[in-house]
Amino acid sequence: MPHQRTPVPSPDELILGINQGNTTSLARAITLVESDNPEHLSKAARVIEACLKSRPETMRIGITGVPGVGKSTFIETLGMTLIEAGHRVAVLAIDPTSTLSKGSILGDKTRMTSLSSHPKAFIRPSASGESLGGVARKTREAIILCEAAGYDIILVETVGVGQSETAVHSMVDFFLLLKLAGAGDELQGIKRGIIEMADAIVINKAEGANVARAKQAQTEFSRALHLYPPKSSEWQPKVLTCSAIENSGIAEIWDMIKQYFLSVQKDGYLEAHRSAQNRQWLMQHLEDVLKSEFFGSETLKKQLDGWVIKVENHEVSPFKAAELLLADYRKELK
Amino acid sequence: MPHQRTPVPSPDELILGINQGNTTSLARAITLVESDNPEHLSKAARVIEACLKSRPETMRIGITGVPGVGKSTFIETLGMTLIEAGHRVAVLAIDPTSTLSKGSILGDKTRMTSLSSHPKAFIRPSASGESLGGVARKTREAIILCEAAGYDIILVETVGVGQSETAVHSMVDFFLLLKLAGAGDELQGIKRGIIEMADAIVINKAEGANVARAKQAQTEFSRALHLYPPKSSEWQPKVLTCSAIENSGIAEIWDMIKQYFLSVQKDGYLEAHRSAQNRQWLMQHLEDVLKSEFFGSETLKKQLDGWVIKVENHEVSPFKAAELLLADYRKELK
Repeated sequence: MPHQRTPVPSPDELILGINQGNTTSLARAITLVESDNPEHLSKAARVIEACLKSRPETMRIGITGVPGVGKSTFIETLGMTLIEAGHRVAVLAIDPTSTLSKGSILGDKTRMTSLSSHPKAFIRPSASGESLGGVARKTREAIILCEAAGYDIILVETVGVGQSETAVHSMVDFFLLLKLAGAGDELQGIKRGIIEMADAIVINKAEGANVARAKQAQTEFSRALHLYPPKSSEWQPKVLTCSAIENSGIAEIWDMIKQYFLSVQKDGYLEAHRSAQNRQWLMQHLEDVLKSEFFGSETLKKQLDGWVIKVENHEVSPFKAAELLLADYRKELK
Repeated sequence: MPHQRTPVPSPDELILGINQGNTTSLARAITLVESDNPEHLSKAARVIEACLKSRPETMRIGITGVPGVGKSTFIETLGMTLIEAGHRVAVLAIDPTSTLSKGSILGDKTRMTSLSSHPKAFIRPSASGESLGGVARKTREAIILCEAAGYDIILVETVGVGQSETAVHSMVDFFLLLKLAGAGDELQGIKRGIIEMADAIVINKAEGANVARAKQAQTEFSRALHLYPPKSSEWQPKVLTCSAIENSGIAEIWDMIKQYFLSVQKDGYLEAHRSAQNRQWLMQHLEDVLKSEFFGSETLKKQLDGWVIKVENHEVSPFKAAELLLADYRKELK
């Protein structure tokens, strides 16, 4: 059904709608957050400030894995399990590497057939083609909006091949890596460092002839994870197997996630971690803006390529080149 | 023997001395690089530019490991092996986390008794107490100076518990992680991500009753490393054991390092990687300066703490706080 352009509702209308759990208000507020229009952004900021105050008890769960690992089916099956357990589930997809994996995320809504039509679920793919910083900011603010609208479990999906995983990891409470058993999967381009961020590794497609291989992979990963230093949450990452398509192993995964939240809620880690994430986002955003202003400046556009060539050819040290570039940037600012 | 303050030599004198392999000139040039005096820095820049042009064929090797792993003994034994093979060896220590591990690095020179007194070796601890960016910059420029002075193997030592490993990894050709076998070592605080950066893991202290445990650790790490994605160098990281104190296994480590360099020299990776590192350092240094100017500004000093508290208390979103802080910073600049 084609959308008609309607006037943007006022922040107060949106806040009221969101607090009533109205998905149209929620969707429109997220659209405002995603807009580049300064007027929209200023309205969005007012909605965000209001929603920040509600602070309901929620679980933010990041889910990553390379294309083909079965993320959509996994989220569909896990999401329905959560809804049956009485929860309301929002799924946000973050994907700045749009060309590589557009299909895998933009297709989600149509592939998650039960979840997308369920009144207790809300699914929202990210706007693609944006900078990582922009997409990350918008996803983070979308989490706040979804929580204020009464979704108590937020699943943030990412594709595991780009740079978005670190961003997602820094906005969730629990980070789950979905993998496949079998030769070559380790080499299928999962980004370095992701295994270390995972609170759980789930080997999907443990069905039929694949079960034995999945169990073998489970043993190998469990052993490998013990070689990593402990996490600040004191949580020992778990390795589980499942078949999302056959709905086996999903209940165990949900049990594990509950166990995690019980543990981090009790010792105060969850609250402290979220505060630290907020602080980190403030610092990160300050850096992002400083950098994007500098790297978008006239001085830089005109001079950078020339300096890069000189630096690559060892004609000038990186530090000397930086010094001269920055001196010209300061002149431009004045 | 106490030093007398002598006038700083001219850049031309230093360049001449370095090119002749004069260690006094080399040491004084590094001191210039480490100075905060603008006049010294401008002289240092001229020396660096001249040294950059020499571009001899060298090997830059990073060595990391937590305190107690036997780094000094390992570098002493490896360094003497390299000298016997006809090389000239410079050892640079980088350690911004001065309080934690001051002893381990500042004590190096006295503990590496054979190496430190050998005419073909040059050992230089980093100035401690500086920012990471500063120490990293200075170490990187010290590498250039040592190479121009005829040292064809540069060992860059770091302690494996701080943030300096990423910096060291980005300035060397080969990155070696030194570990101990046996219970608990995995948990002794080696930083997350270091295992993924390693081109080799060497289990030290494989001597006496420890040999079997070291071999066991070797098997476990080899298996775990196969779970990682391949490196851009296409080098499959190796796991070896050694006893630095008994000088066993060191020749095999040197053979492995030679094998690595043969492979990356032949396919052009080494040259391309060094060019990419230079480019990366230019970009990184630009960022570092932008950040240090902002975070050192009056606006930030006055306002940051207040905003952090508001952000941690969920009173304002990190993005809104950043926007307001940056607006005031721009006013300060004008």
